[in-house]
Amino acid sequence: VFTERTPRVAAARHLTQRSGRDRAGRFLAEGAQAVREALRFGVVHEIFATAAAAERHPDLGPATVITERAAAGLSETVTPQGIVAVCDLVDVPVPVAVGSGARLVAVLVGVSDPGNAGTVVRVADAAGAGAVVFAGDTVDPHNGKCVRASTGSLFHLPIARCREVSDVLRACRSAGLRLVGADGHAAADLGTAPLAEPTAWFFGSEAHGLPDLPLDHRVRVPIYGRAESLNLATAAALCLYASATAHLT
Amino acid sequence: VFTERTPRVAAARHLTQRSGRDRAGRFLAEGAQAVREALRFGVVHEIFATAAAAERHPDLGPATVITERAAAGLSETVTPQGIVAVCDLVDVPVPVAVGSGARLVAVLVGVSDPGNAGTVVRVADAAGAGAVVFAGDTVDPHNGKCVRASTGSLFHLPIARCREVSDVLRACRSAGLRLVGADGHAAADLGTAPLAEPTAWFFGSEAHGLPDLPLDHRVRVPIYGRAESLNLATAAALCLYASATAHLT
Repeated sequence: VFTERTPRVAAARHLTQRSGRDRAGRFLAEGAQAVREALRFGVVHEIFATAAAAERHPDLGPATVITERAAAGLSETVTPQGIVAVCDLVDVPVPVAVGSGARLVAVLVGVSDPGNAGTVVRVADAAGAGAVVFAGDTVDPHNGKCVRASTGSLFHLPIARCREVSDVLRACRSAGLRLVGADGHAAADLGTAPLAEPTAWFFGSEAHGLPDLPLDHRVRVPIYGRAESLNLATAAALCLYASATAHLT
Repeated sequence: VFTERTPRVAAARHLTQRSGRDRAGRFLAEGAQAVREALRFGVVHEIFATAAAAERHPDLGPATVITERAAAGLSETVTPQGIVAVCDLVDVPVPVAVGSGARLVAVLVGVSDPGNAGTVVRVADAAGAGAVVFAGDTVDPHNGKCVRASTGSLFHLPIARCREVSDVLRACRSAGLRLVGADGHAAADLGTAPLAEPTAWFFGSEAHGLPDLPLDHRVRVPIYGRAESLNLATAAALCLYASATAHLT
């Protein structure tokens, strides 16, 4: 049984930090669901699991058995799942992600909360989006909390990351996508956006909103009650599903 | 400056537990936004704030100044906001909540995650719902994490809680509401629900789904990609907004 001091475990622990992930070109997918999707996606180098977790998930194949404490050290979440896979990073260049005929793309701009970002990946996948782009100062998609919140969707559609938002705008335009921003302060309602067109939706953080970018449209999800705003994931769900529904009809 | 041992602060600390809240008939609304909404709603008995928080929010009126440590003891969240109001519980009986002509109601059944529950309150408010009911084994709406996730919406629309789900079903029927369940395993799509009718939407937990209840319809939000499911708040957003939109047209 490997402990947190075993070199391979200690090396894997570096992957809980962005700098360690970028250096190694690898990240950790935690939890049985994420490990299963990572295996399907063919990016797994090694699986670490506690004896209990390995016994619970024989379908995931052979795992290197580690102590509970070692498992906690490899976890970025409050409740360690006891099973984690060392995987190749999944991101692809922005033009590759958005240029493959995608008719619906989600772009996150300056979203620092990994749980929110991961939930948007999940809802983008559900809405049938062709890609998600993590732009500007957005969290790393390989962050453990983001991976977990995506519940496997990180492996279902192309993910790109790019510090330069202007490069993302250019790639989306080149791919023939309309650039539409979700903006709680916009004058126009969601329904006024050209939803049937191929669209790249831009979403900002809840704290700072969407920055001033040269988009084609900015629309707001209508608020019928007294709430000041929607949270990021629910706003993204309503925007992306509005496009998905319009694309079908 | 009051410390965590000052009797009034120690008494308020009991309100971080459900049993203490139910005994006192009071709860804690944490953070400037929640305190502001609670003041508007007229349910505040006392405000506790650190010196720094009191200085940041002079608009919230006089506060009893407490130490940082006392503020942490009154917080149910990871990052204490430094300001918290002792408030009367906000819940009303189920027939009062759903019987006042509400055309759109959200019912949570067995939802144990307070953050998810609070986010549904927020999105129900945004969608113009007339009430939210916390049914069965659902978390207490006055739980600190739920209050925080609702971002003030807990004070915007009637909130009820009821252990007996059958009582909730009866009250909704008496109020003339159609009972529609959001169920990822349902055969019928969201679009097949009679959305223009006055509707009580029933939502279960992500872990256990919606239990077997005598509802009028069960529908699923369509999944266009490869995601297995949506999370609770995004599913609720899509269902409640579908009704809200249908009610307008």
